[in-house]
Amino acid sequence: MTNEELFSTTVLNTWKLIIGRFDKSLATLTDEQLQKPVAPGKNRLYYLVGHLTAVHDRLFPMLGIGERLHPELDEVFLAHPDKELADPISGTELKKAWGEVNDKLTAAFSKFSPQDWLLKHSAVSDEDFAKDPTRNRLAVVLSRTNHASFHSGQAILATKTPA
Amino acid sequence: MTNEELFSTTVLNTWKLIIGRFDKSLATLTDEQLQKPVAPGKNRLYYLVGHLTAVHDRLFPMLGIGERLHPELDEVFLAHPDKELADPISGTELKKAWGEVNDKLTAAFSKFSPQDWLLKHSAVSDEDFAKDPTRNRLAVVLSRTNHASFHSGQAILATKTPA
Repeated sequence: MTNEELFSTTVLNTWKLIIGRFDKSLATLTDEQLQKPVAPGKNRLYYLVGHLTAVHDRLFPMLGIGERLHPELDEVFLAHPDKELADPISGTELKKAWGEVNDKLTAAFSKFSPQDWLLKHSAVSDEDFAKDPTRNRLAVVLSRTNHASFHSGQAILATKTPA
Repeated sequence: MTNEELFSTTVLNTWKLIIGRFDKSLATLTDEQLQKPVAPGKNRLYYLVGHLTAVHDRLFPMLGIGERLHPELDEVFLAHPDKELADPISGTELKKAWGEVNDKLTAAFSKFSPQDWLLKHSAVSDEDFAKDPTRNRLAVVLSRTNHASFHSGQAILATKTPA
């Protein structure tokens, strides 16, 4: 592998690892368990999964890699805080949407050449990108990976003993 | 910048961003506030800061970039769960140690060439590294960045409304 291939492969591995761990902790949870808040008065697991699904689904247009799968989740999980609107789908359906979105993203990332990782994303202007070429797809995927870790840390409070 | 420089700079920026955000959320907390658990019966903020400091301090030998600054923290914050041993230092001292460790790490990472990021770390054997060259310093720093995000998500529960 060339150096730039090593960089892109290592970044992709980290994405897969973090998403895979979250998937694993979700897999055994029932719809009832997903209703549990991560701490008293805080977001429910259900809401965190919906929030992450909507944020990840928005990566398709942002990275120019296809159409969104679940734009209908934005209203409940991005525009409103937890429990302000009624739950639009069951926990089981939500877990399915989460899996679909990440599978499609991972498939797209897996086809990226190193150069593809360094392309501009659609939320930055040509002018700003010319000034700062680190505002690339790589930066966005690293940011979303850390965002998933951030909420994984919360989710685990409702599912396990502290670690 | 070359492609490999863009990769390494983007990764370094992500590390700085995540650590910087955690620093910012810690900065305003008093020693008393650091005693607060992130949720009832879970780790205190104080313990999370100590845990992250010890984990990051271990990066110096692991990445071959210098001597550890605070090996004395391992016993309380890695070998034992929260509150099993007495607090060894004040919250203010702990925040200072956290800052020192990360400043020294960031200074070392900032001097890495792209090739430096792709070197073997000391926790992998020559043989295993030959088989899988993605077990490099980059993978370790990405992992620690996500680990810091994981605990940041918990810490914010004690300091802010859900987000």
